[in-house]
Amino acid sequence: MSTPLCIFDTTLRDGTQGEGISLTAEDKVKIALKLDAMGVHYIEGGNPGSNSKDIEFFRRIRESKLQAKLTAFGSTRRKNSLCEQDINLKHLTESGARAATLVGKTWDFHVHTALQTTLEENLAMIYESLAFVKNSGMEALFDAEHFFDGYKANPDYALAALAKAKAAGSAWIVLCDTNGGTLPGEINEIVSRVVREIDAPIGIHTHNDCELAVANTLAAVSAGARQIQGTINGYGERCGNANLCSILPTLQLKMGHDCVSDEQLKTLTNVARYVSEIANVHMPVNQPYVGNAAFAHKGGIHVSAIMKDSKTYEHIEPQLVGNKQRVLVSELAGQSNILSKAQEMGLDVNPDSMKSRNVIDRIKELEHQGYQFEGADASLELLLRDAYGGSVQIFTVDSFKIMVEKTGGQMTTEAIVKISVAGEQVYTVAEGNGPVNAMDNALRKALVQYYPGIRDIHLTDYKVRVLDEKDATAGKVRVLIESTDFKDTWNTVGVSSNVIEASWEALIDSIRYALLDMVKDDIEPEFVGGTHGLVNH
Amino acid sequence: MSTPLCIFDTTLRDGTQGEGISLTAEDKVKIALKLDAMGVHYIEGGNPGSNSKDIEFFRRIRESKLQAKLTAFGSTRRKNSLCEQDINLKHLTESGARAATLVGKTWDFHVHTALQTTLEENLAMIYESLAFVKNSGMEALFDAEHFFDGYKANPDYALAALAKAKAAGSAWIVLCDTNGGTLPGEINEIVSRVVREIDAPIGIHTHNDCELAVANTLAAVSAGARQIQGTINGYGERCGNANLCSILPTLQLKMGHDCVSDEQLKTLTNVARYVSEIANVHMPVNQPYVGNAAFAHKGGIHVSAIMKDSKTYEHIEPQLVGNKQRVLVSELAGQSNILSKAQEMGLDVNPDSMKSRNVIDRIKELEHQGYQFEGADASLELLLRDAYGGSVQIFTVDSFKIMVEKTGGQMTTEAIVKISVAGEQVYTVAEGNGPVNAMDNALRKALVQYYPGIRDIHLTDYKVRVLDEKDATAGKVRVLIESTDFKDTWNTVGVSSNVIEASWEALIDSIRYALLDMVKDDIEPEFVGGTHGLVNH
Repeated sequence: MSTPLCIFDTTLRDGTQGEGISLTAEDKVKIALKLDAMGVHYIEGGNPGSNSKDIEFFRRIRESKLQAKLTAFGSTRRKNSLCEQDINLKHLTESGARAATLVGKTWDFHVHTALQTTLEENLAMIYESLAFVKNSGMEALFDAEHFFDGYKANPDYALAALAKAKAAGSAWIVLCDTNGGTLPGEINEIVSRVVREIDAPIGIHTHNDCELAVANTLAAVSAGARQIQGTINGYGERCGNANLCSILPTLQLKMGHDCVSDEQLKTLTNVARYVSEIANVHMPVNQPYVGNAAFAHKGGIHVSAIMKDSKTYEHIEPQLVGNKQRVLVSELAGQSNILSKAQEMGLDVNPDSMKSRNVIDRIKELEHQGYQFEGADASLELLLRDAYGGSVQIFTVDSFKIMVEKTGGQMTTEAIVKISVAGEQVYTVAEGNGPVNAMDNALRKALVQYYPGIRDIHLTDYKVRVLDEKDATAGKVRVLIESTDFKDTWNTVGVSSNVIEASWEALIDSIRYALLDMVKDDIEPEFVGGTHGLVNH
Repeated sequence: MSTPLCIFDTTLRDGTQGEGISLTAEDKVKIALKLDAMGVHYIEGGNPGSNSKDIEFFRRIRESKLQAKLTAFGSTRRKNSLCEQDINLKHLTESGARAATLVGKTWDFHVHTALQTTLEENLAMIYESLAFVKNSGMEALFDAEHFFDGYKANPDYALAALAKAKAAGSAWIVLCDTNGGTLPGEINEIVSRVVREIDAPIGIHTHNDCELAVANTLAAVSAGARQIQGTINGYGERCGNANLCSILPTLQLKMGHDCVSDEQLKTLTNVARYVSEIANVHMPVNQPYVGNAAFAHKGGIHVSAIMKDSKTYEHIEPQLVGNKQRVLVSELAGQSNILSKAQEMGLDVNPDSMKSRNVIDRIKELEHQGYQFEGADASLELLLRDAYGGSVQIFTVDSFKIMVEKTGGQMTTEAIVKISVAGEQVYTVAEGNGPVNAMDNALRKALVQYYPGIRDIHLTDYKVRVLDEKDATAGKVRVLIESTDFKDTWNTVGVSSNVIEASWEALIDSIRYALLDMVKDDIEPEFVGGTHGLVNH
């Protein structure tokens, strides 16, 4: 079986309806180019009738010669009016997009309640609007809003609406589970009937309100739908849209459908992370296929089986979607985890050596103190490199001091840092929004003159947890920091009874890890100007 | 249709295999009590054979009379040995749990590769181990690991393994999609065959590697499975386990199965958020049914339709799962909650008064800033008492200052606090293990002379979370503090871009809340000695 399917991405339109997701025209251009390179067939860029930001996006994207069909979104015309006088349809046809999706009502309840018009007028709105768009020279697609709820309430009317869209010349008729409440069995049954009765290419557009958007999409494909609408990372209104990052690999690797090339599928993890960075949304570590933990193994028994054959606990090879296997180290796991981690890093490991025994004892001791390396890969890597000789000590900390003060409603935070780097002592002071920010600023200020690449690194998450809960403010705390340089993401840990010291430790590890790469080519630090040495900055 | 189903929660066992999820014995007790109140039928508490933390949990939970069947997890015995000599099985039977789940192999590939034994020996391991557990007086459940992959590779062997488990007296045979790679159609077909051929109650245990764990569970139920294994919020290894927070409402509200009572289902959102707080894992805003955005409406057209009839864009009534609609124009549900909370506290509340409108506006504004009162009842109570006149302003803070320094490996932390109490200014300085401890010490030192009861209060938990993840060290953080006086426990919240300020805020609320009780009988502060006024302590 190898039926070609059509992938329709609506990250830039329906995806931006998600809470906390807001994309500038520039963001949208960047994402469109990534999607195009991955081989999606349609890119829905926005609603040029609803806001000027989308008009700007359509203007700017024209310069890029997209392979995908650029698509603009709008609604059927207003009730009791002419398409020629509809300002939204005008914007749509002037957008420069090659295709237009028009959403229209197919649920009688919505026609009465939301539109407050007659069933006949709604059919006229569908027919005339799609014909208008098609006559303007664009490809027309019909988004049948609430189709499944509509079909359950009044199948004849819902099907009549589709027939109107087909008669008007729609290239695709897309069945939408707008409220996300339909179950896979219902989807399969209803799509099967539509495919039998409506002689037009059928698409599917689902929402995740029951955590079934992916399953509903697959059920529709099994029933004969040929266009899949969804978003990267499942962004979208309420609980989100169907997640293309889960649908694409399942269709291609498990169901035998051709969607994109094997090479394009290998960019999936990168695309998912890139979009999450631009959208400024934290990607869940456990996201299927593309998440950082999607192929991470924690339990000792699992890890020892994985070492024998990765198929034992992996449903696909992670490389097929551009992800990778990770072995997590935790108190539950044994020494085989730690050593395979070291081997993964390319270190020369002899499991029986004194070195190996020492590093395992050290990690156990740290875990006993409250360190948790499963969420702090980078700290573990530094520990292993320090042990097996794969790291360089780039700087040492001589002292630091934090002052936080609130007087007259005014907060002030300063950090003073004294470090030794390249044989010199650097002494810096910086302000910050809080103590960690101030420490981070002071430390960068000291290092940036030697390692300008450090400018690109920033902290993306910061978590604190009390370990000994019997006395929270006097007990130990564990700090986890996540950092990124826009390409990679890494996690570090610090533990202390003092939250400042624990944060400092995790921060130092984050910077040391970033510097591992920067000093690979050039062990001698580069000096790029500014005063340094025993100088107050 | 109304078939009763059995809900088996494994948040405390398989859930803790998730990356970044680490629960203390005390955390586990708290979660078990919540799950029990929600009416789940089995609570799998952990693996007493693998770590001492789980043994402690089973010891401590014995004091609570759970309605649910407490279940311990373990593996079939080691190859070529006797159950009587298996230390893990020994721990299992000594755990005090009423039931035991034993995981065993049903995939021939795993028997050869991971266990490295014969197919016959594996069948003996299954039979003897389950019989051993059953003979010890416990109910025995069989987790058929990799059953679906095993069935696809060698159906006869996979079914033979189930038959052995049945012959040994397993109360349930649970089919596991351990690697999470199976599709709903396959699940339906294979479960149907098992139900036909194996005369025992069948359960389903799925993983989310294809974002299909919920759909696969529902497919198994449609095929005749009667026990559902899953975790709260879908926590679990790699991409997680089947999410009970999505499965439970779908089964009950859409598929007509009885699982828990309607009242218990209404606690679902609270349970989901409580567990995410304890696990210190950020809950995705778009999580189905229980997420903060699950019933949030952003688009203008959607909002106006919702105002006419909420069914237009909501697949269920949010109240059925204890969640609420969020609409930008007005939060009617929220408002009535807040007012009924105030009435609960015995405050004289007129919903239409200016006072009520002001306090609701204030709470909305704070929530917008990142405050979350669901996990901070005491802060909410103070806010309401301040508004309706049920509190006394016992002290005000004039200024505070924190200094943290590390020189020569030595950490020093000091806090200086200036407060006004009983018409006098008190100025104190104290050391601490960290900044929060130092602030706490300085504040107590200032107040204890007036309110000696403050000595009995201490902080039991302290959590920090970044809210704006774009720039973690410069973004906002939310601090949650839990305090106790050995009789009661209360939670307070603070939000700021500065972790010290947010901590200070939560700390002040904690102390103010404690003082509410102490001043009830005696509004005039008691003076118990020591110098005070404008004095340096």
